[in-house]
Amino acid sequence: MESHNFFLQTNTREEMIDITEEIKEILQKKSSIRNGYIKISIPHTTAGVTINENADRAVENDILHILRKIIPKSRDYSHAEGNSDAHMKSSLMGTRVDIMLEHGQLKLGRWQGIFFCEFDGPRSRKVYVNIFKE
Amino acid sequence: MESHNFFLQTNTREEMIDITEEIKEILQKKSSIRNGYIKISIPHTTAGVTINENADRAVENDILHILRKIIPKSRDYSHAEGNSDAHMKSSLMGTRVDIMLEHGQLKLGRWQGIFFCEFDGPRSRKVYVNIFKE
Amino acid sequence: MESHNFFLQTNTREEMIDITEEIKEILQKKSSIRNGYIKISIPHTTAGVTINENADRAVENDILHILRKIIPKSRDYSHAEGNSDAHMKSSLMGTRVDIMLEHGQLKLGRWQGIFFCEFDGPRSRKVYVNIFKE
Repeated sequence: MESHNFFLQTNTREEMIDITEEIKEILQKKSSIRNGYIKISIPHTTAGVTINENADRAVENDILHILRKIIPKSRDYSHAEGNSDAHMKSSLMGTRVDIMLEHGQLKLGRWQGIFFCEFDGPRSRKVYVNIFKE
Repeated sequence: MESHNFFLQTNTREEMIDITEEIKEILQKKSSIRNGYIKISIPHTTAGVTINENADRAVENDILHILRKIIPKSRDYSHAEGNSDAHMKSSLMGTRVDIMLEHGQLKLGRWQGIFFCEFDGPRSRKVYVNIFKE
Repeated sequence: MESHNFFLQTNTREEMIDITEEIKEILQKKSSIRNGYIKISIPHTTAGVTINENADRAVENDILHILRKIIPKSRDYSHAEGNSDAHMKSSLMGTRVDIMLEHGQLKLGRWQGIFFCEFDGPRSRKVYVNIFKE
């Protein structure tokens, strides 16, 4: 099992950042495993990780817009930091995802990309990438 | 590690299809692994995979109804294809699920079944089934 | 691979119970694996498992409040048991989560805890903990 990680600086409160290339770079430059799977996870509670379309970035804007409409920031939360909307979105999207690795390639669909979802930025964030051999 | 897959033809725009039997058939007829776990994943961005009750199919109708109410199709989306509701639902339900395998049996609860969730059909869909030995 | 499990008695209809200590206790007292990962899963269809902040319990109250607002119990469901809101919440939160294990420690963020989410209690519940060696 290999342990890798990388850092991200987010720029606004809510943002979906395509991290597919970062993951591919780790696979190509830092890993010797060609078959197995990778586990992507984050140590944060106001962010998420998801797989969705990366051909048209309008999809990600719509996703953030829909989430904002369903879960408004202005709600009367009991959590004093006032960012419970971000915690809720984190659990809805999830904070970890596994992807199969075959012949050195991520087993993703033609339109699938991996996204880091910032819900309470801007912040410095970290992504763990664990790679397992078949 | 074994790699299997199967195809699905969905019939309407939104549908939850119980694929538990397809998975069990792969385990019984095509796999020699009896202990470990299986990873189910899909290469699509407008569909999902989830585990929920398969005793009363009314549960699945209610789930589709609730999702439709929360995330209307008619919203003013920026994604030109107009199916951002389906992308959102895909990320909410998720596109992958792991299930433990013990003594040749899926470790599922009495009422649990595995569902392919179509959110933008009808379409031809594919399900990946990777089986890992303990 | 090791198989462990434990039982939980929930006390109200909706509740988020921090199970991080139960998981750590299994790792310390019953497991000999120090590097690898653990798979937490539940056999239920009206409950979930998620990772979120466990420093301020107000976060969990806000999450339950937001979910209740988005998905009311009183909706006109076709499922005769009338608890389709709980089934929906189960699929939204998910029923399984993996956590990396390094040097005998769960690889969780500083504020992250593991929560069992009850959506249709009070009930007796069960949590499966499978531990895999690197």
